[in-house]
Amino acid sequence: MAGSTYGTLFRVTTWGESHGKAIGVVVDGCPAGLPLTEEDIQPFMDRRKPGQSRYTTKRAESDQIEILSGTFEGRTTGTPISMMVHNTDQHSRDYSAIMDKYRPGHADYGFDQKYGFRDYRGGGRSSGRETIGRVAAGAIASLLLKKLGISITTYIRQIGPIAIQSFDAQEIFRNRLYMPDAGAAQKAAAYLESCMAEKNSSGAMIECIVKGMPAGAGEPVFDKLDAELAKAMFSIGTIKGVEIGDGFRVVETTGAENNDAFTIDANGKITKKTNHAGGILGGISDGSDIVIRCASKPTPSIARPQQTVTRGGEKVEIEIHGRHDPIVAPRAVVVVESMTAITLTDLLLRGMSSRLDNVKQIWHR
Amino acid sequence: MAGSTYGTLFRVTTWGESHGKAIGVVVDGCPAGLPLTEEDIQPFMDRRKPGQSRYTTKRAESDQIEILSGTFEGRTTGTPISMMVHNTDQHSRDYSAIMDKYRPGHADYGFDQKYGFRDYRGGGRSSGRETIGRVAAGAIASLLLKKLGISITTYIRQIGPIAIQSFDAQEIFRNRLYMPDAGAAQKAAAYLESCMAEKNSSGAMIECIVKGMPAGAGEPVFDKLDAELAKAMFSIGTIKGVEIGDGFRVVETTGAENNDAFTIDANGKITKKTNHAGGILGGISDGSDIVIRCASKPTPSIARPQQTVTRGGEKVEIEIHGRHDPIVAPRAVVVVESMTAITLTDLLLRGMSSRLDNVKQIWHR
Amino acid sequence: MAGSTYGTLFRVTTWGESHGKAIGVVVDGCPAGLPLTEEDIQPFMDRRKPGQSRYTTKRAESDQIEILSGTFEGRTTGTPISMMVHNTDQHSRDYSAIMDKYRPGHADYGFDQKYGFRDYRGGGRSSGRETIGRVAAGAIASLLLKKLGISITTYIRQIGPIAIQSFDAQEIFRNRLYMPDAGAAQKAAAYLESCMAEKNSSGAMIECIVKGMPAGAGEPVFDKLDAELAKAMFSIGTIKGVEIGDGFRVVETTGAENNDAFTIDANGKITKKTNHAGGILGGISDGSDIVIRCASKPTPSIARPQQTVTRGGEKVEIEIHGRHDPIVAPRAVVVVESMTAITLTDLLLRGMSSRLDNVKQIWHR
Amino acid sequence: MAGSTYGTLFRVTTWGESHGKAIGVVVDGCPAGLPLTEEDIQPFMDRRKPGQSRYTTKRAESDQIEILSGTFEGRTTGTPISMMVHNTDQHSRDYSAIMDKYRPGHADYGFDQKYGFRDYRGGGRSSGRETIGRVAAGAIASLLLKKLGISITTYIRQIGPIAIQSFDAQEIFRNRLYMPDAGAAQKAAAYLESCMAEKNSSGAMIECIVKGMPAGAGEPVFDKLDAELAKAMFSIGTIKGVEIGDGFRVVETTGAENNDAFTIDANGKITKKTNHAGGILGGISDGSDIVIRCASKPTPSIARPQQTVTRGGEKVEIEIHGRHDPIVAPRAVVVVESMTAITLTDLLLRGMSSRLDNVKQIWHR
Repeated sequence: MAGSTYGTLFRVTTWGESHGKAIGVVVDGCPAGLPLTEEDIQPFMDRRKPGQSRYTTKRAESDQIEILSGTFEGRTTGTPISMMVHNTDQHSRDYSAIMDKYRPGHADYGFDQKYGFRDYRGGGRSSGRETIGRVAAGAIASLLLKKLGISITTYIRQIGPIAIQSFDAQEIFRNRLYMPDAGAAQKAAAYLESCMAEKNSSGAMIECIVKGMPAGAGEPVFDKLDAELAKAMFSIGTIKGVEIGDGFRVVETTGAENNDAFTIDANGKITKKTNHAGGILGGISDGSDIVIRCASKPTPSIARPQQTVTRGGEKVEIEIHGRHDPIVAPRAVVVVESMTAITLTDLLLRGMSSRLDNVKQIWHR
Repeated sequence: MAGSTYGTLFRVTTWGESHGKAIGVVVDGCPAGLPLTEEDIQPFMDRRKPGQSRYTTKRAESDQIEILSGTFEGRTTGTPISMMVHNTDQHSRDYSAIMDKYRPGHADYGFDQKYGFRDYRGGGRSSGRETIGRVAAGAIASLLLKKLGISITTYIRQIGPIAIQSFDAQEIFRNRLYMPDAGAAQKAAAYLESCMAEKNSSGAMIECIVKGMPAGAGEPVFDKLDAELAKAMFSIGTIKGVEIGDGFRVVETTGAENNDAFTIDANGKITKKTNHAGGILGGISDGSDIVIRCASKPTPSIARPQQTVTRGGEKVEIEIHGRHDPIVAPRAVVVVESMTAITLTDLLLRGMSSRLDNVKQIWHR
Repeated sequence: MAGSTYGTLFRVTTWGESHGKAIGVVVDGCPAGLPLTEEDIQPFMDRRKPGQSRYTTKRAESDQIEILSGTFEGRTTGTPISMMVHNTDQHSRDYSAIMDKYRPGHADYGFDQKYGFRDYRGGGRSSGRETIGRVAAGAIASLLLKKLGISITTYIRQIGPIAIQSFDAQEIFRNRLYMPDAGAAQKAAAYLESCMAEKNSSGAMIECIVKGMPAGAGEPVFDKLDAELAKAMFSIGTIKGVEIGDGFRVVETTGAENNDAFTIDANGKITKKTNHAGGILGGISDGSDIVIRCASKPTPSIARPQQTVTRGGEKVEIEIHGRHDPIVAPRAVVVVESMTAITLTDLLLRGMSSRLDNVKQIWHR
Repeated sequence: MAGSTYGTLFRVTTWGESHGKAIGVVVDGCPAGLPLTEEDIQPFMDRRKPGQSRYTTKRAESDQIEILSGTFEGRTTGTPISMMVHNTDQHSRDYSAIMDKYRPGHADYGFDQKYGFRDYRGGGRSSGRETIGRVAAGAIASLLLKKLGISITTYIRQIGPIAIQSFDAQEIFRNRLYMPDAGAAQKAAAYLESCMAEKNSSGAMIECIVKGMPAGAGEPVFDKLDAELAKAMFSIGTIKGVEIGDGFRVVETTGAENNDAFTIDANGKITKKTNHAGGILGGISDGSDIVIRCASKPTPSIARPQQTVTRGGEKVEIEIHGRHDPIVAPRAVVVVESMTAITLTDLLLRGMSSRLDNVKQIWHR
């Protein structure tokens, strides 16, 4: 029970269902003094908003974020920040065709087994709309990280068989698939058209790079930085695999190849010659870029007939109509970035008391 | 701070360093009434004990587990179970050659950055010996799961380039590499010999299968079953990638391929025709086998010269001698299984209150 | 940081300031299947609503609760229940007279020291209006407890020097001071009139009795039932003392007087002859009535001139005008009851897994 | 379940039963760099050790603390500090006379109801010996607080009807009753003799004063400083009432009397003219002395015959022989001090991230 809260000191609680009145989030533990208005948050919301392209749902939601508490005169006060988005376009349609059928690839069956019944309209709590709260919270975390010189870049590395061949950070926001390679984006778009034509959907790989992360964050032994990041990523419904740094490639490498040699950079700072570790050693940030890769599964809602069963245990066919994306990943990009920002912020706050000297610095008045 | 505790209701706290007096664990929240003696736990300890083969460290530790509290007349009492293993073979040798040098691929640099200094003898808290406590706790969790009809099988699927070609569960415990394919185990042994000859080490892939898991465990939205499992896996120092079910293969699949159709089995029970999801849908167990795969990096301690720097910021060479395994994975197999067992147990206990009917059943006296 | 969440499995997160847009709460971990509508909750809200009598603030708030998520077809779904009340009567007045002055007996100085600045309009987060969220959550907990046969009665035992001389449960809701003794209520009303005439305020003692609590709830050793209840009570701003059972009277008693003898009741059930312990032994409920007493301090906002200082460190006089109650306790009665209900519910859910037999009962399908 | 851990960032987990092999504690989250050896901790242990006077149990335990992990070269490393005391004098005697009888005033019945059975030898987990771990952890917290200029004084204010009439801090450690008034201590000793002669026991009031606490610690709204302290106190088995500052005296006071006026002290620092609030306003420390008072119940184990029942539901008499103190409070003094120190340390660490400026100070490298 009670799995809707994430984080220890920077604590995020989301609430709301796809077809309820609203979706929201409470962010508790945000340090006081961070400049914050709705205008700062809305651009993050817009990145996951539906209806942005042919490949995202046509559901017409403006997803305007409203701050209800926790700021005063344009700054955070240290008290909980409550934010909300109203659901405006939940069609009041007939659910009788699907209410008793378990949609393959969805959480329906698990929810029924766990709770005894469920809100069968559009996924309820397991809908992607739940991530609205995460993105609003992630926006705050991102703004806070920026104040510490930390930035995050997230993009799609591969869609179905189409992987990027080059990297241009500017390009990421130029195409609707958030790919850093214009050519790949074009091919991927064509691939998605073919999926749609076949009433099918596609998986993808999302990559997230953190720059400027100071060394020393992460809590051995269970709350390692990579452990918390992995949990954060897998808490996103669509994610089925996570890698840090070289990830699964370490299976076939050797220690001599995989170890990153330490050296001294031009500014006299300790750094690593390579970054197979993806910026995390022993669960603690090492000052290099943090590199996370996630596998996003194909949208389970597809319009072709599928075999399934009813609640009552009868074999039936199901066809899922409605406003479904042929790919989840483009809208998940900002969710991955948000969960990364929230996790880093939480571990940075938790790490403040790691040394007696730091404690003295803050409290010896 | 305070990252040495794992779990919400079944809560595991480990302590101890590789070269301290002892290594231990406190398990709090274990239900009362579980038969438990040291003899029940020792077989799990023996699976990670050093000195079992050519490919594991020669450190001579008996790793005899001692229960200090929490049982009475052979059963758990519901109070914290404290368990300990004495460190008996920590060589009192000269560390001056490595105490100021950051070992590549190790946590040394991060620890210094985080805490200001560290116990430089053999890895201290980031040593693999910390996992002793996890295995003792995992043994208890495994015994509890067995009472619920849940069993876990863990093995090595691949070592360097050598992947298994067949699966024989009996074979897993017949070879020292815990591979379910005798032929692959033989080839892998030869491969490890060549690594050792070159003062090198190898990565590997570990797979873990859970059978008998009831549907309905896992807490949406952040404490999903897969999210908690991923954190558990990444909390093991050697793990750099985690997959559930098809994992990264979903990137190139389509919804039509990846969705698992529901059907009715011979006993009239709802089941899935395929298991691409790896037993978890929407973060909740679906009653199918849970399938977890982890990438284990090559042992970072290798005897060949490597480039690094000192605490003081001087470039130096380092050669790491001592008793190091050419591969971490065989001893990590039981750690993966233990963290899986702990995670499942915690989520099963947490899930008991998901329905009002269950609450009434327990408390309406 | 992050102190706005209460509870482990039945988890309550409140948000909102007295002069912000709204006040709200998220209840996560409520078991699925509890009948719940806004009509079930509103009566609890009405008990703490302002403007009910001469002794409560004239602020004109309707405090209509709105459920935003977590229910479907009139029952809880197991997902987070978000509830909100809009602030409709926050006067937009001139705060320049008090914004820089620390009000004696208030949290102003502490907030400034902690966060660097604060929302100076009407107490911000430390306002009594924050408790709206607690009462909405407490209503849900109370409804759940009722399903288990547990009921809570809360009332005022003493106002200033006027203590109750008799107990009539029906009387509690007949007078606006929630005293179970009509005569005492009348005298207390006269006493409060004299306080108001002198621009002064009064303290009070609140008592809370829980009937029907099963034996066996509470988690040794830190999360004892009385420890959690004491935290719950002291988390209410006005409370300065808490007693369980005989409380401070134990100082002057002896073991022979204070020990409650066990006996067998008419139904053959084990019970206690007396209840000095107040229903809790060793931190675990013993099946007797739980008895809690709390000391509520006089309203700190009084209209007479008081000495204080400014943020800048200048000595000044302050006079606090506005809509303030001459006594906090009548409106705190339902808050005490709510925090009690939330605490009991959380510990009942936590206690479900105390025995292996219970775990098997729920999960062995 | 899982109630043996206390604290969020400075996290204390105790384990062990009175008649098990050992009693211990794990302290996780202690900042690195604090000088710490067994010699620093032992004086705290000696204050709660049995056999110190006629009024404490004759059980002959040396209670020598052993540090098993978490320090290196005489300083804390930031990793968990495991400490243990062996039980050396647990008499292996015949428990058949009490094993099935519920001792009045003890936790026996509750444990049986909760867990289904219990370790019936000497109280098991609910024994006062469990507090050994708290005192060892409290010693570390006290040493850390000292580095921040914070000190704690704890003593007995009243025993039965004998209250102190004067206060001499030096006297506290001169008499075995830890009373700051030699005359009262003498009278109290005589009173305890009379209790013992009558096979009876006495209650007491313990007072704890914290000096040097900086303003700004405590987490609104649930984790208020006073709320956490109250939980800490009530988690000690013998405590039945807690007051902060004026405590229950606020019931009969008025706002004009109870409000503490702010003023400027000789050093130009903001301070309060009085301290009715006991150093905490709105749940946040205000820089004044923190004042806590606790009611300690009489020892429930008394040698005179008492009525009770057996597990099987039979009415019987019980006489509790053995080595029992006629008063719990003298040995509880250091437990109250320890729980206070642990609570303050945890809230100081949690409060470090309350302002963005503090976060920047620690992390902007």
